[in-house]
Amino acid sequence: LNHTPVRPTTFIAARRLSERIGTDVVLASETFQHTGSFKFRAAYHVACSVGHDHILTASSGNFGQAMAYACRLLGKRSTIVMPSTSAQVKVDAVREYGGAVELVDVRTKSRAERVAELASQYPEAYVASAYDDDLVIEGNASLGEELADVEPWFDVVVAPVGGGGLTAGIISGLRRSGCTTRVIGAEPLLANDAARSLREGRLVANELEPQTIADGARTVSLGERNWAILNSGLEAVVEVDEDHIMEAVRMLFCLTNLKSEPTGALGVGALISQPQRFKGQRVCCVVSGGNVDPSVYCDILS
Amino acid sequence: LNHTPVRPTTFIAARRLSERIGTDVVLASETFQHTGSFKFRAAYHVACSVGHDHILTASSGNFGQAMAYACRLLGKRSTIVMPSTSAQVKVDAVREYGGAVELVDVRTKSRAERVAELASQYPEAYVASAYDDDLVIEGNASLGEELADVEPWFDVVVAPVGGGGLTAGIISGLRRSGCTTRVIGAEPLLANDAARSLREGRLVANELEPQTIADGARTVSLGERNWAILNSGLEAVVEVDEDHIMEAVRMLFCLTNLKSEPTGALGVGALISQPQRFKGQRVCCVVSGGNVDPSVYCDILS
Repeated sequence: LNHTPVRPTTFIAARRLSERIGTDVVLASETFQHTGSFKFRAAYHVACSVGHDHILTASSGNFGQAMAYACRLLGKRSTIVMPSTSAQVKVDAVREYGGAVELVDVRTKSRAERVAELASQYPEAYVASAYDDDLVIEGNASLGEELADVEPWFDVVVAPVGGGGLTAGIISGLRRSGCTTRVIGAEPLLANDAARSLREGRLVANELEPQTIADGARTVSLGERNWAILNSGLEAVVEVDEDHIMEAVRMLFCLTNLKSEPTGALGVGALISQPQRFKGQRVCCVVSGGNVDPSVYCDILS
Repeated sequence: LNHTPVRPTTFIAARRLSERIGTDVVLASETFQHTGSFKFRAAYHVACSVGHDHILTASSGNFGQAMAYACRLLGKRSTIVMPSTSAQVKVDAVREYGGAVELVDVRTKSRAERVAELASQYPEAYVASAYDDDLVIEGNASLGEELADVEPWFDVVVAPVGGGGLTAGIISGLRRSGCTTRVIGAEPLLANDAARSLREGRLVANELEPQTIADGARTVSLGERNWAILNSGLEAVVEVDEDHIMEAVRMLFCLTNLKSEPTGALGVGALISQPQRFKGQRVCCVVSGGNVDPSVYCDILS
């Protein structure tokens, strides 16, 4: 792991944001990670850990770009299944990173079906999950280790929850480093399966893919491997409504000069949704990624 | 200087941008510096070097915010003269950083006149220039020292030129560190007094304040102290037209996830204006600041 190309996270002391919220906030931005999100940590770890020379995965977003680039760095082949309705910039980005794109018309065939077809067409390929995989958690644990290296330790880390791979990784990395910093998840209210799971003490799924603007958190449920860690490891999940997600994107733009995608702003959204919960604490807010279309971004800013 | 609160610059290896341009580009972003631009380096150095407890300056932009915050950190008083037409967010920012704002209606009185009035009203105050001051150059030299610390050295550093305080500081810092990295300025074509000065070998001024979108470079001429350094120290000045400035802002957004103000994008604008000049070299591109109104930013993105 000494030769990992993973970039260290970018710490930004957010003074104006801290004064506005009334809490001492440091951002840990993964927006400058390779391919623009934390997903590269997991993708690279998966791609270099499995023996296969060809990796197949379904992703319309950051995991696809991350896996394409990780495979390119390792001289492997990647095939990324994307809905035919994906934004052209996202398709272009995967191709630019060296991935082969397989578009699927999700009105006639699900992504999972297309992945299964391709898996039988390429039996030598490894089929990677974007979150429900021990290798994914292990890759993301590198961020937890980095957070444990900051002294004095943060009181609490707040990070977005979609499939749960990021928070499970952070918890793993912190704990193995002996660091007791608490971890709180930030989840869209529209996609609150993690919050409900924590309340009910069992893995709960959304009925449909939730249509939150935080597209990285449009998961139906947590991964089982992630839930096993989050069930006892997460202190809480803060549910963030759509207005607070957009307000968080604007605050990051105006008060910290940081471009964040909506999913990346969930942590800040949690801080402004429940300021009392964080008052007087030293908070690290993970901004998980920055990839967002200019048109979506400007709609949020204006 | 060991206790300087100046934040180190944020280096971002810009892989997609590099591939697009055909040059190996690393960004040195000052957008996460205190108050969002490199100006804090100079403002803090001025404020802690002079004995005065009250500092007076005219600035509608980044220097005013920087000086207000530097004075607050040092327990000093600051008065910032701003045109009454300044965007409200800029006035608010100066006040939030602790500065007293004096608005001046520039149709009836120039900023310089108002500064002179205030200077006689507050004879104990130090009147600070935003660029034509040895202390400003010295403050900005800290960035040159940081660039000299990166090994192997960059072949060339490209940085915006307005009054010339930034490039003069970078050259000073590099040279005193024994570093031979070349320095190239990036200037709006609409405000090309530095390029003309270099061609003519003498300090040339624009007739009026140029109306470039790069508002940090709307200076009538270089400062005399800066010119003394730039005349021999700058390899060249690349003139960037308005379309390339805006394209550079878009490329930073789309390819590097970096929010830049138009002035901050001048270096990238220089790279895309004259790609042949930089081909095959290891270039450090200084992004001098990130403070830009959402509405201006979205006009550029769309």
